Amino acid sequence: MKPSGIITLTTDFGLSDPYVAMMKGVILTINPKVEMVDITHRIRVGDIQQAAEVLRDTSDYFPGGTVHLVVVDPGVGSKRRPIAIHNGSHFFSGPDNGVFSLIIRDDPPAAIVHLTEDRYFRPQVTETFHGRDLFAPVAAHLSLGVPVEEMGPVIHDPVRQEFPAPRREEGVLVGRIVHVDHFGNCITNIPENTLKRFLQSDCPVIELGALRMDGMQKTYSDVDEGRPLALINSSGRLEIAVNMGRASEYPGLGAGNVIGTAVKVRKA
Amino acid sequence: MKPSGIITLTTDFGLSDPYVAMMKGVILTINPKVEMVDITHRIRVGDIQQAAEVLRDTSDYFPGGTVHLVVVDPGVGSKRRPIAIHNGSHFFSGPDNGVFSLIIRDDPPAAIVHLTEDRYFRPQVTETFHGRDLFAPVAAHLSLGVPVEEMGPVIHDPVRQEFPAPRREEGVLVGRIVHVDHFGNCITNIPENTLKRFLQSDCPVIELGALRMDGMQKTYSDVDEGRPLALINSSGRLEIAVNMGRASEYPGLGAGNVIGTAVKVRKA
Amino acid sequence: MKPSGIITLTTDFGLSDPYVAMMKGVILTINPKVEMVDITHRIRVGDIQQAAEVLRDTSDYFPGGTVHLVVVDPGVGSKRRPIAIHNGSHFFSGPDNGVFSLIIRDDPPAAIVHLTEDRYFRPQVTETFHGRDLFAPVAAHLSLGVPVEEMGPVIHDPVRQEFPAPRREEGVLVGRIVHVDHFGNCITNIPENTLKRFLQSDCPVIELGALRMDGMQKTYSDVDEGRPLALINSSGRLEIAVNMGRASEYPGLGAGNVIGTAVKVRKA
Repeated sequence: MKPSGIITLTTDFGLSDPYVAMMKGVILTINPKVEMVDITHRIRVGDIQQAAEVLRDTSDYFPGGTVHLVVVDPGVGSKRRPIAIHNGSHFFSGPDNGVFSLIIRDDPPAAIVHLTEDRYFRPQVTETFHGRDLFAPVAAHLSLGVPVEEMGPVIHDPVRQEFPAPRREEGVLVGRIVHVDHFGNCITNIPENTLKRFLQSDCPVIELGALRMDGMQKTYSDVDEGRPLALINSSGRLEIAVNMGRASEYPGLGAGNVIGTAVKVRKA
Repeated sequence: MKPSGIITLTTDFGLSDPYVAMMKGVILTINPKVEMVDITHRIRVGDIQQAAEVLRDTSDYFPGGTVHLVVVDPGVGSKRRPIAIHNGSHFFSGPDNGVFSLIIRDDPPAAIVHLTEDRYFRPQVTETFHGRDLFAPVAAHLSLGVPVEEMGPVIHDPVRQEFPAPRREEGVLVGRIVHVDHFGNCITNIPENTLKRFLQSDCPVIELGALRMDGMQKTYSDVDEGRPLALINSSGRLEIAVNMGRASEYPGLGAGNVIGTAVKVRKA
Repeated sequence: MKPSGIITLTTDFGLSDPYVAMMKGVILTINPKVEMVDITHRIRVGDIQQAAEVLRDTSDYFPGGTVHLVVVDPGVGSKRRPIAIHNGSHFFSGPDNGVFSLIIRDDPPAAIVHLTEDRYFRPQVTETFHGRDLFAPVAAHLSLGVPVEEMGPVIHDPVRQEFPAPRREEGVLVGRIVHVDHFGNCITNIPENTLKRFLQSDCPVIELGALRMDGMQKTYSDVDEGRPLALINSSGRLEIAVNMGRASEYPGLGAGNVIGTAVKVRKA
């Protein structure tokens, strides 16, 4: 697989500190022709599940041969391994803490290596910023075509974190809200396929707290303004939204954080 | 007009979700050499007027042949048309909901087309994310030189939203605050030309709530620290500011959102 | 020194307004091949010290010949001079208000010029946005190889702002918190060298408010979760952190802003 010359960046660094820019400077020093795209730097601090989900939802929109640099790394400097992955279509560089769980599960990789060859690192690797000193230079070298296999020994036991999946309980499909987006849309962990298998040809009734929605819509404006609806969103997940409003703040959802709230699907 | 190879992005997607990155991945897959510049992703959700004003103020700073991708699209998936515009100096891709009203008014376009040729879209167009599945690939193809006219039939009735303009009332020029920027500067809908025509050679007295300013300044430091002033800002609009302070939080302006507040200009 | 073709941007413009994009459009109009990297646009409004520290910590990660554009410019339009700097490894463009103090102190420049040659500016320079009309086009020309010396007369009296340094008081090294990062880590103005010279071979006791830390750690996970620690961070400064937590919100630190709080180092 030929590198695309593109590196994406996903971190929990926020947008105020210069940490992301330091990584970009390191990358440009190694590969001056690289194209870099920020996926997000607003992963919740240390939230490995969110990073894994964002990566799964986003990486496929990039050309084959793209390198995905992921630095959500609460265990930096501890014994967690630094790894690089090649899965036949993309490359990945980041900590072995579960951020790649969904990538590994959905598209079993050709190779995962424990990054030990320090000639691909910065000359001095600090204990607290492997993103800049190790994962960024590795990503830059991957974008130049260095094979992952040259960067360390192949491993077969990467951390595979299990994230809660929807389950069936007495004829009800029970998932939960895993993300609230900028528009207040409440995104569940229920994929379209799971929903279809559960419903077959039946119509659904969907409950989120005191909210109840009969049937699925195609788009937001299929209901009146201010009304809630359920749809399959553009990433193939069941989503609860409000037309021209914020589902996450809908009366009856209770105050505070909606993330984690149960979503129940029944057959009508 | 030759494309510049540059695509700008203006959305209300915020900076936390991966939606912008998905669009960039789609664009890079079609045009790997493209240069992308974020104008802002912090348009207030669904605020078509703000998007139109930002686009008018910013697009001209880019080289001729730049493509401006605008996704402030509360009606996504409804009957609102997707359009592309070519106005002799720039290209535009986005929804026909008024976001291009000021571009169309100020610089009548050579061509506006209803985007119907789906070979320029992603193979599967979701109902809820035309930004990624339709407007982004169209922008990428425009940046490669595909003529807008190949993308669908020419239309002559784009949505032209009228945004409130300043008016004269009994010898007073009455505008309003349309934006408060990061510095707390209060930007009005009064253009320099309108102000000049109104004042002729007279000196102005400007009132914003309980604030009263005699005359216009050239720059912020023309008044003492903490004092309010009026000036023509770098985008050619009347602006109320406070030297080393935030006009939007000035005592006497009342609590809460300053946007919409009347600004009155009299002759001294 | 050959330009790298890279321009970095550091401002206090925030991420909502189109001001940064206007500068980028101006730069691309002059140098269409440029690579631009945002360092941060979230410098606290008008905070020259923070801009100077971010620039010192970040600029060296970029390739030699990079141009650093810095627009933290509360005195725009006043008599403060616009300057450009060439220090043998990098170029700088921005206001002569102290933002370059640490660059000038740590790496005495080959040349500092007062920017007067307006052929390198935009045709019309507004009084309120020199970033767009003057510093951005100068940066673009520097990235194309125009020598700083062609842009105006050499000066020898740039503003050199002194920022508070740690001091010794009765056997105690007293510094202060100068920044709280996205993770709540509290970063001091005590450099590693100063700390080492003070401690020699002794072990330190470090106090921040009611917090007391015995000894230094290598990384966050060297202490139990939720416990405070002191370490030398990845930029070579003494930092107070909490493993898997936010030092800035640690009980005993008092409410409110931690910035400015004294940090005391004693020998154990």
